[in-house]
Amino acid sequence: MQLTTSLLPPSINSRSDSGPEDELAVVIDVLRATSVMAMALQAGARKIITCREIEQARGVAAERSPRPLLCGERGCQPIDGFDLGNSPAEYTPDQVGGRELILTTTNGTRAIDSVSQTRRVIAASFLNLSAALFEISKADRVHLVCAGTDGVVTAEDVLLAGAILSLCETRFGAVSLDDTSILARQMWRSWFPSADTPSARQLGARLRETRGGRNLIRVGYQSDLERCAEIDVVTAVPTRCSASPAAFAMQQSHDLVV
Amino acid sequence: MQLTTSLLPPSINSRSDSGPEDELAVVIDVLRATSVMAMALQAGARKIITCREIEQARGVAAERSPRPLLCGERGCQPIDGFDLGNSPAEYTPDQVGGRELILTTTNGTRAIDSVSQTRRVIAASFLNLSAALFEISKADRVHLVCAGTDGVVTAEDVLLAGAILSLCETRFGAVSLDDTSILARQMWRSWFPSADTPSARQLGARLRETRGGRNLIRVGYQSDLERCAEIDVVTAVPTRCSASPAAFAMQQSHDLVV
Repeated sequence: MQLTTSLLPPSINSRSDSGPEDELAVVIDVLRATSVMAMALQAGARKIITCREIEQARGVAAERSPRPLLCGERGCQPIDGFDLGNSPAEYTPDQVGGRELILTTTNGTRAIDSVSQTRRVIAASFLNLSAALFEISKADRVHLVCAGTDGVVTAEDVLLAGAILSLCETRFGAVSLDDTSILARQMWRSWFPSADTPSARQLGARLRETRGGRNLIRVGYQSDLERCAEIDVVTAVPTRCSASPAAFAMQQSHDLVV
Repeated sequence: MQLTTSLLPPSINSRSDSGPEDELAVVIDVLRATSVMAMALQAGARKIITCREIEQARGVAAERSPRPLLCGERGCQPIDGFDLGNSPAEYTPDQVGGRELILTTTNGTRAIDSVSQTRRVIAASFLNLSAALFEISKADRVHLVCAGTDGVVTAEDVLLAGAILSLCETRFGAVSLDDTSILARQMWRSWFPSADTPSARQLGARLRETRGGRNLIRVGYQSDLERCAEIDVVTAVPTRCSASPAAFAMQQSHDLVV
């Protein structure tokens, strides 16, 4: 298995060493977009359509019947007139069960856009780490794409990339890593040297040190950070089923081995 | 002290969070450009003018009297008609003492170009680590620029960035790091958890795992890798004295405390 990592979406931090055709892209926006996507599908949402711009999201919503829920954030805050913000706790079965969602976020949907040429795309978070790892285990070439924040590398995304890379190496044996992947793996191992999965408390403490974590706490969303630090509480793996606009649905997971 | 890191030159991996005016840029191309620059000045070279293109280097050389030495590489190999390649061992007092050098390399000179707007620029390597650290200690804002290889992150450069960041924290106390710097620091600490400086053998073993190290070994320059892993054998710190074309001379180091 060959694994590569971009610390920022490829459009920003351009890649030159791998093609998109035969690989699986794993989009990572721990705080909070890909965590929200996993929660939403786990709670029974039927589909998530991601849009880069707010007006595009409203346009797509207006065309569809029944009307989808408008979801997302700008500057970490809910968007005027939208149904839901970007907090995982909002995505309950009552709220999203059976519904189609339109999601637009500052960095996560940009990262998803950046792999629009890649055939297979999933969204990973700590919430669905083992389930995402199971999907990854089926691929020969995997490219991890960290969302970052406004074009700047954020450690929380690199940390999840590192966790995935470290677990791939431990569980699947011989893997080939590019230097950026080595960097991410070493970051994870330096903070979590034990082979045991860290507790939500341990992971949350590290997430609070990251750029994204500090941002969230500053605007009053510390409880979201704590929620996003819960490893393996979700088995849903958002898997892209349509490239344009990007639509994600739940991965079939009847064969999932956690 | 505020420290930020770019894993690739800013023109490739664009920065958005700091201005160039009031900071010190530290260019890092461990294998081999910034190691060669330190060796050359230590061996008594009077000045190093870096050029991005081979023809530009020949042009600058033709204009100057006495004729400077033409130095550098393309694809790790010496350039036709040039006086010296890119191996630190070539830069002896016999070869370069009292001479002006024109240097063009694939990635190092591009990284130097990328900070042409920054007022203060030095070149760091493991060879002159403590001496570079002494210069860094005088700055309030420091930006580490890893050269990478052809737009791809290389672990050997991130490793030196991590060593610098880790030592800054240990020696100068409260420092503020961006997330990319945290990543680099953790990479260094994960490979070298002891506070002691690693031996050339230990560091060399890690450099051999990196993209740049593997490249060098493949083309037969393993001895250069071993040379570049010798920590603190040089006190010269190449310091930019003219921005265009970029010219570096030895930092005054009479006040150097190693």
